[in-house]
Amino acid sequence: MNELLTPEELEVRFREIGRDRYHSNHPFHHLLHTGRLNKGQVQAWALNRYCYQSAIPRKDAALISRAMDRELRREWIHRIADHDGREADEGGIDRWLVLTTGLGLDRDYVISMEGALPATKFAVEAYVRFVRENTMLEAVASSLTELFAPTIHRERISGMLEHYEFITADVMKYFRRRLDQAPRDVAFALDYVKRHATTPERQLAAERALIFKCNVLWSQLDALYSAYVEPGRIPPGAFVPDKDV
Amino acid sequence: MNELLTPEELEVRFREIGRDRYHSNHPFHHLLHTGRLNKGQVQAWALNRYCYQSAIPRKDAALISRAMDRELRREWIHRIADHDGREADEGGIDRWLVLTTGLGLDRDYVISMEGALPATKFAVEAYVRFVRENTMLEAVASSLTELFAPTIHRERISGMLEHYEFITADVMKYFRRRLDQAPRDVAFALDYVKRHATTPERQLAAERALIFKCNVLWSQLDALYSAYVEPGRIPPGAFVPDKDV
Repeated sequence: MNELLTPEELEVRFREIGRDRYHSNHPFHHLLHTGRLNKGQVQAWALNRYCYQSAIPRKDAALISRAMDRELRREWIHRIADHDGREADEGGIDRWLVLTTGLGLDRDYVISMEGALPATKFAVEAYVRFVRENTMLEAVASSLTELFAPTIHRERISGMLEHYEFITADVMKYFRRRLDQAPRDVAFALDYVKRHATTPERQLAAERALIFKCNVLWSQLDALYSAYVEPGRIPPGAFVPDKDV
Repeated sequence: MNELLTPEELEVRFREIGRDRYHSNHPFHHLLHTGRLNKGQVQAWALNRYCYQSAIPRKDAALISRAMDRELRREWIHRIADHDGREADEGGIDRWLVLTTGLGLDRDYVISMEGALPATKFAVEAYVRFVRENTMLEAVASSLTELFAPTIHRERISGMLEHYEFITADVMKYFRRRLDQAPRDVAFALDYVKRHATTPERQLAAERALIFKCNVLWSQLDALYSAYVEPGRIPPGAFVPDKDV
């Protein structure tokens, strides 16, 4: 465990972490992708996930605010605009709001995050703080869940379109766009981590950062499952699905 | 002092702060702009000021990383690329390096900041931390020194071109570009501060943030003056001008 891995061995280790810990393994996703959730449960997922989407630009700005290396900043900055939008591109957050609106949720209610689970917000803000407070290597390594994202996005697009009559191709455009964006982003991040994780300690720190990030994603689905599936105990103040949807 | 000012009165207060405290009043700038520095002293100014230039993207990313308001993030993000550069635009940091190179300084030495005065680095990093740790209102208000920048930039362009044979129009392009950029930036920031400083306490906090920022700029010139003018005691390890330039 404490010997120096080659960069290729380190990447293998990252992929093992993803295989074992990425939230594609979570039962909530199996239910989501195979059509076994009702519309209210899908609404709960989408409005909680909005908290994560809307925090990503702050996370990436926190990373940039700590980067003494201008090349890293120049490479990373497009991520902020990818989510917040540019003049000619609505951005990932707006695409997510297309999904929540398509699901019948009020846009302002979603943006207010008032109905989101406290556990969701705690996990998301833990991620922003992690990037702000840990080493640059750990901050970059925590983004490596993007290695595993295209698979889950493809599953989600096809599974949700097939199984839910209330899901149309238009509202899934967030995921289609991420199929293009995530591989480009992760190629840079993976190369960065391989080049900078040059001691066993740094390699371990990078692995732990990726595990941390997997935990951030996983715990959000645990909270959703608990509140909206089993036992289905919605915390006080959180979103309550309309029985008639 | 503790009564609520109108937005217009608050702007007047800001302009009074600038009139009394902006670093255009500093004796070092009078020397710089009237041709009374030698080339070594101008080099010292340019390589110290690089520390400030190169920290600005981190400062602006720190602000964005704390902004829950997406419209603010979208408005602010261009500042990072204005300094770091985009594919089609070299950016302010590169334009500053054109100046230092034009002054005969080694590019890598400037970028290393090894020859910069410790007081410069302390002041610059205090600014980054101020933006990271104080309220969003204070973070935005600290940028309002841009209200006063165009005047000093115009003085500097004409004064330095006129008085120094080692200064050419090409190396002054950083300042010419800022003549366009700064007014656009400050219009948004001033409006933001006027809209959000809605109590006497917030107005005072905004004034103090602007005073803090003036101090950041002023103290850099005090340190330059001390090291390179009077008494001219260069701290250990700091840049020593070549006697032959």
